[in-house]
Amino acid sequence: MNSALKTAGVIIIGNEILSGRTQDLNVSYIGKNLEKLGIVLAEVIVIPDVEETIIERVRSYSEKYDYVFTTGGIGPTHDDITTASIAKAFSVKLLRNPDAVACMQRHYDPGNLTEARLKMADIPEGATLIDNPVSGAPGIQIENVFIMAGVPEIMQAMLDGLADRLIGGPPILTASVSTNLTESKLAAGMSKIQDECAEVSIGSYPYFKGGELGVNIVLRSTDKSLLLEQLALIKTLIEKTGGAILETITLD
Amino acid sequence: MNSALKTAGVIIIGNEILSGRTQDLNVSYIGKNLEKLGIVLAEVIVIPDVEETIIERVRSYSEKYDYVFTTGGIGPTHDDITTASIAKAFSVKLLRNPDAVACMQRHYDPGNLTEARLKMADIPEGATLIDNPVSGAPGIQIENVFIMAGVPEIMQAMLDGLADRLIGGPPILTASVSTNLTESKLAAGMSKIQDECAEVSIGSYPYFKGGELGVNIVLRSTDKSLLLEQLALIKTLIEKTGGAILETITLD
Repeated sequence: MNSALKTAGVIIIGNEILSGRTQDLNVSYIGKNLEKLGIVLAEVIVIPDVEETIIERVRSYSEKYDYVFTTGGIGPTHDDITTASIAKAFSVKLLRNPDAVACMQRHYDPGNLTEARLKMADIPEGATLIDNPVSGAPGIQIENVFIMAGVPEIMQAMLDGLADRLIGGPPILTASVSTNLTESKLAAGMSKIQDECAEVSIGSYPYFKGGELGVNIVLRSTDKSLLLEQLALIKTLIEKTGGAILETITLD
Repeated sequence: MNSALKTAGVIIIGNEILSGRTQDLNVSYIGKNLEKLGIVLAEVIVIPDVEETIIERVRSYSEKYDYVFTTGGIGPTHDDITTASIAKAFSVKLLRNPDAVACMQRHYDPGNLTEARLKMADIPEGATLIDNPVSGAPGIQIENVFIMAGVPEIMQAMLDGLADRLIGGPPILTASVSTNLTESKLAAGMSKIQDECAEVSIGSYPYFKGGELGVNIVLRSTDKSLLLEQLALIKTLIEKTGGAILETITLD
């Protein structure tokens, strides 16, 4: 879409997502917020809590993308192996970090800062902390990898605090229109509109609601005026094809 | 957990998931249903609608896992490139499939079976069809790859119809218990229980609700009696640590 755009990869770490027991809600939050910063989420992978898998994927994503975000596995229990595995991925030691201990001391009553919790203050050498305003134990940045919590409320607070560390390109703008037509009726016309303007990417997303199929058409570009021009063409196409325009979101 | 278990990989194809515009709901449904069949979901990847990426990932997953499931990109529009890309991944041609056309003729009124829709009846040579009771256009099985729709209602109906083609190992059984204790209080005790019985995997998943952190502890095994023994140990640990047992799900 634009070669100045930066890219990101997300690594979701957790058996509970793969088993279907927990519904991931982090990918959509990260994807939306990165777009605003002009960073394209290029790929997401969901992997189990297995050390060698975490090491291999973090190394490969760190080389491939400008930014890497991990979620999950940074708590105090036996299955929380993300931080130790990522330290190994970068061949550095884990050290008890005094700033991380101080963060946790501010959050917990003295008797509650157990040894299990203090494990969350063991940080890879050379890493910096990510503020956790929700539950004390910080996230971690090591090189271009941002290690965040899996609990959505905590992950969101961590990501919100990172905006000034993430340098993106121009923001990716989005507009959309939904209609009661099925997408097959619009397919040929949309394809023509897409072919004539590569700078605006047009996605067609069918939905199923109350027994009826409809379609959301989503346009994305870093160029606002081109985006609005193409949106107008799509709306005209829908009307000429006999469809109703159910909802238009011009920019978000 | 058990070497007789079969493995699966899922490839979610769609820019709309990466941009955060659409929340994926398919991974959790697939994960849960595969477990019942004794198939472990080993890895999920979310990729954009880009031909070379689809080809590379489908080849690699097809070699690595017993079963591969894709969702998304099989509709009639210009951005629906999944089927054509997977045909290329297996170096076979796309051919208009008479059985697929017949499925669609049963679903659509004669005037509505447009050329755009008929594109959905172009099937890789040698592939078999997956029934779509919701919207007519079939899914596709080629070798160990199952190509399914992205719309959750359609994907679920397709997967439900596949049970007799998927040969798994013994079903993976799950039990869980939740408590108002934070996981740090249970960390040392849980770690000991896990260390003494590798056949039951114990996961600890904190949650955040109404300003309070609690934890779900999830046990998984193919051995029912071991699973129940370990569950009893965890419940005793919670009680001895002064926690309340909020909910126990013995088997699901």
